[in-house]
Amino acid sequence: MELIHTVAELRKYLRGVPNNVFVPTMGNLHEGHLRLVEEAAPRGACTVVSIFVNRMQFGPNEDFDRYPRTLADDCKKLESIDCDVVFAPDEKELYPEAQTYSVVPGDIEGILEGAVRPGHFRGVATVVLKLFNMVQPKAAVFGKKDYQQCLVLKNMVQQLALPVEIILAETVRAEDGLALSSRNQYLTDEQRAEAPRLYRVLNELKHALLHGTHAYATLEAEAMTELARHGWKPDYVTVRRRADLQPPSAAEKELVVLAAAKLGSPRLLDNVEVELA
Amino acid sequence: MELIHTVAELRKYLRGVPNNVFVPTMGNLHEGHLRLVEEAAPRGACTVVSIFVNRMQFGPNEDFDRYPRTLADDCKKLESIDCDVVFAPDEKELYPEAQTYSVVPGDIEGILEGAVRPGHFRGVATVVLKLFNMVQPKAAVFGKKDYQQCLVLKNMVQQLALPVEIILAETVRAEDGLALSSRNQYLTDEQRAEAPRLYRVLNELKHALLHGTHAYATLEAEAMTELARHGWKPDYVTVRRRADLQPPSAAEKELVVLAAAKLGSPRLLDNVEVELA
Repeated sequence: MELIHTVAELRKYLRGVPNNVFVPTMGNLHEGHLRLVEEAAPRGACTVVSIFVNRMQFGPNEDFDRYPRTLADDCKKLESIDCDVVFAPDEKELYPEAQTYSVVPGDIEGILEGAVRPGHFRGVATVVLKLFNMVQPKAAVFGKKDYQQCLVLKNMVQQLALPVEIILAETVRAEDGLALSSRNQYLTDEQRAEAPRLYRVLNELKHALLHGTHAYATLEAEAMTELARHGWKPDYVTVRRRADLQPPSAAEKELVVLAAAKLGSPRLLDNVEVELA
Repeated sequence: MELIHTVAELRKYLRGVPNNVFVPTMGNLHEGHLRLVEEAAPRGACTVVSIFVNRMQFGPNEDFDRYPRTLADDCKKLESIDCDVVFAPDEKELYPEAQTYSVVPGDIEGILEGAVRPGHFRGVATVVLKLFNMVQPKAAVFGKKDYQQCLVLKNMVQQLALPVEIILAETVRAEDGLALSSRNQYLTDEQRAEAPRLYRVLNELKHALLHGTHAYATLEAEAMTELARHGWKPDYVTVRRRADLQPPSAAEKELVVLAAAKLGSPRLLDNVEVELA
């Protein structure tokens, strides 16, 4: 496995490797990330993982400085699986000058996570485009836990005619259902025991939808009340159509239920897809 | 020479041609465009010229519909020089769905041409990025007559880490000094006789700068008065520093003088670079 820190070295290493598959991360890797890499490996001649904590996608009140940097540990984990290149640039390398250009996603950037975190998705879109231009992968893998991010990036590829296939990988969960996330490490033992409720509530909502209920607003309100009753501060639990995360019509078959809620200080995200008959 | 209309055909044709050099145009080609192609040809194995009138860079009051489409003539001209591929997609091909994503340039998009034509440069940046992603050239050639556009695109490549070299070609002029432009065809005989004044005025200003005058504002005002006295409606004549087109300090050595002025209905652009000792 090669550890590379500069764009020049990366381009040199990847020259003549047209078939690379890419997994962008912010490091602090857990089993969910490793599964993305395992998803990537068989699809190309070379698997590239980037580790970069991207200031541009953090809001002014979000904790960019305290985001965990664990490069040595991350590399050890990646050594143990099928990863060929770790690209870990520092900020000066990725942003050698103040970033004044950005990729602005359409309507999708202002809703849900975008409403709670203004500017977040243009930060994500811009850094991922830059990383794509550095790595020039034929495919890239993202995890469905960050569902809206997946859609922002899938749409970006389509709208900007990027020659990159976007592969979406299923969310990896603990045995009790909790979606794996870097944020889980900040849960107290008590919160960790409570945390799987988020997924359970989403599944209950899913089953109500599968049983033909179309009263989305009622289901959403019930789910949020249920979470609040157990000490959560939900930002949203919402039924959306998968294509663009807009509220669905009653006829819509391809749905996703998305939730974001704080449990103490960690803010957890989760979602479940629902396919109506 | 190959005439290609779809992205799929283009990608197929260019597969295994990693050394192509690209000249994006809106067609209605004149000698200035052909010089860009001649600049491109010796630099790569394959020269690709795109012809696409890009609605996204036209303002609501600008004449997108009446922009001349002369594909057959353009192809004849390109046949006669060293052009390998003409890529002429229609709108549905370049924008198969409503374009909701855009590349937003930084501060440079709001000044000069950007102030007169709001949204113009994000339209240019977005379509050029899409075309780059389709053609995947190792280099692309643009003409310095559209000086601010050159800078917007050079900065885009830098800021988005695109693996494309931007080559800027000198403005091609008629014998009397008028910069070649599609817009010149709309000048009456009388206006055509008057039109070279724009370049003369820019050169007078250049010589004043070379003689050590630093009274930029006075020089600019004099130039605009001179043009107005001969029936022009100038938007600006302005001395800027080349790096970012901001007003220069007195110490600045790398200058450019930019002008935009209407002569009757056509709006002409021109500029001259100035290198102080």
